[in-house]
Amino acid sequence: MPEAASAAATRATIGDSEFDRDTAVSRRAPGVYDIDLSAGWTIINAVNGGYLLAVLGRALGDALPHPDPFTVSAHYLTASQPGPAVVRTETVRAGRTLSTGQASLFQYDDAGNEVERIRVLASYGDLGTLPDDVRTSAKPPAIPPMDQCFGPEDGPAPVDGSSAIADRLMLKLDPATLGWALGQPSGRGEMRAWFGLADGRDADPLSLLLAVDALPPTAFELGLKGWVPTVELTVHVRCRPAPGPLRVAITTRNLAGGFLEEDAEVWDSADRLVAQSRQLARVRLG
Amino acid sequence: MPEAASAAATRATIGDSEFDRDTAVSRRAPGVYDIDLSAGWTIINAVNGGYLLAVLGRALGDALPHPDPFTVSAHYLTASQPGPAVVRTETVRAGRTLSTGQASLFQYDDAGNEVERIRVLASYGDLGTLPDDVRTSAKPPAIPPMDQCFGPEDGPAPVDGSSAIADRLMLKLDPATLGWALGQPSGRGEMRAWFGLADGRDADPLSLLLAVDALPPTAFELGLKGWVPTVELTVHVRCRPAPGPLRVAITTRNLAGGFLEEDAEVWDSADRLVAQSRQLARVRLG
Repeated sequence: MPEAASAAATRATIGDSEFDRDTAVSRRAPGVYDIDLSAGWTIINAVNGGYLLAVLGRALGDALPHPDPFTVSAHYLTASQPGPAVVRTETVRAGRTLSTGQASLFQYDDAGNEVERIRVLASYGDLGTLPDDVRTSAKPPAIPPMDQCFGPEDGPAPVDGSSAIADRLMLKLDPATLGWALGQPSGRGEMRAWFGLADGRDADPLSLLLAVDALPPTAFELGLKGWVPTVELTVHVRCRPAPGPLRVAITTRNLAGGFLEEDAEVWDSADRLVAQSRQLARVRLG
Repeated sequence: MPEAASAAATRATIGDSEFDRDTAVSRRAPGVYDIDLSAGWTIINAVNGGYLLAVLGRALGDALPHPDPFTVSAHYLTASQPGPAVVRTETVRAGRTLSTGQASLFQYDDAGNEVERIRVLASYGDLGTLPDDVRTSAKPPAIPPMDQCFGPEDGPAPVDGSSAIADRLMLKLDPATLGWALGQPSGRGEMRAWFGLADGRDADPLSLLLAVDALPPTAFELGLKGWVPTVELTVHVRCRPAPGPLRVAITTRNLAGGFLEEDAEVWDSADRLVAQSRQLARVRLG
């Protein structure tokens, strides 16, 4: 392990990190962005939905007149694979303080035709211009200190298959939401963790889009196994996050009819509720 | 008041009611639907966002191969007015159990050009085919019986300006969330009410899109005055509602930086959590 001083010197920064390199898009033409989706952000062999949302968010941040996602709504159509993809954006409305855009991510079938993977509507603004009047009544999650929480590296690999994303993240789960990894799911739809990026890069509004979808599914604690694909995910980004680790708390209260919702809250080191999301996901019952 | 028997005989039904007439769209061509937006669903002179969402939802229900909204994400661009409008839909993906569509509502400027008011992404399915395995852990809201709650007709008109929607709804607010109407807002971001349609029509998946946005804003209980326009609203419809009144409970926990979120839950008479929504809205601070 490098000494503390050189660890600080080699820590990745916003703009120069795995996350930035793997979400970078290159503008081929106005509103057209190419990317090679990384194999580094897969979970159980599927490209993580939050990583994909960050890719779309980066393209929209370039296309729209405002820099920061405020609210992003994504409908996931078909499963993405590592490899070539194109993002096509449209400016729906350019306002004074808010703009709205639409973006689609496509990949290619065997004949080279574009197949749509995800479509997104998003409203952007400038988080730096918001007044600092904060009347948040929500409280940060009750999660033990980081050194009393556990990550994938602390136990046997909890899930089958390729989960390369585990190498990209600093994830330390609340032991109260880890029963599933020991064959004893709690039965409560909860998942909590300290969250960061493995290379030390601090959070920013785009990485918050990843953070809301990067924990193990609450379905595991509800005793459900297998794939829990996201149908739709909406994220509100409310604040530029302070440096340092995030706390992510996810809750499911409405598992019914083969679907569940996951509500995520992301708290930064300054105890600000920097992002909130809700997704609708399908489950296999039984 | 008519006697009970004739009241039952004149009660509106799903398909034959104010709500159905005022959200009906007429298909001019595939994917093109005309409507005259009713002046009957305004709140403080603005056409209610949930009514608009129901209009878009009706068009999408016609356009897509599946009948029921499962998750609808709407970005509100410019304020709608009563009067002529057109909805243009696109089928994004037609799957076996879920389809995804996009829809925009336009109105006309003085030169007759179309001006986009709202753009929506929505995934539809068939609520009637969902398994009835219900493991909802959420509990219905604590709200007093309806006869201990109060509607606009029980007091002086609480807001200035035209709120014709009040005549379309049966709304009985929890007195614990009515302080604002008496000049004593509680300071808590909460609003709860019994909800129905004034003509007695039972709820259905489309009217749930209205129900999540039809209560007074939580901002009033937070002591904020004035317009609280919706930037984005996402609704999950999880179940066909049972007949009878609904209970709607709305919560705001993150009022900060000139924005707030409103989380709504809609419970039916069978104690099912039939819909959940979150919207991001702008506030005027101070």
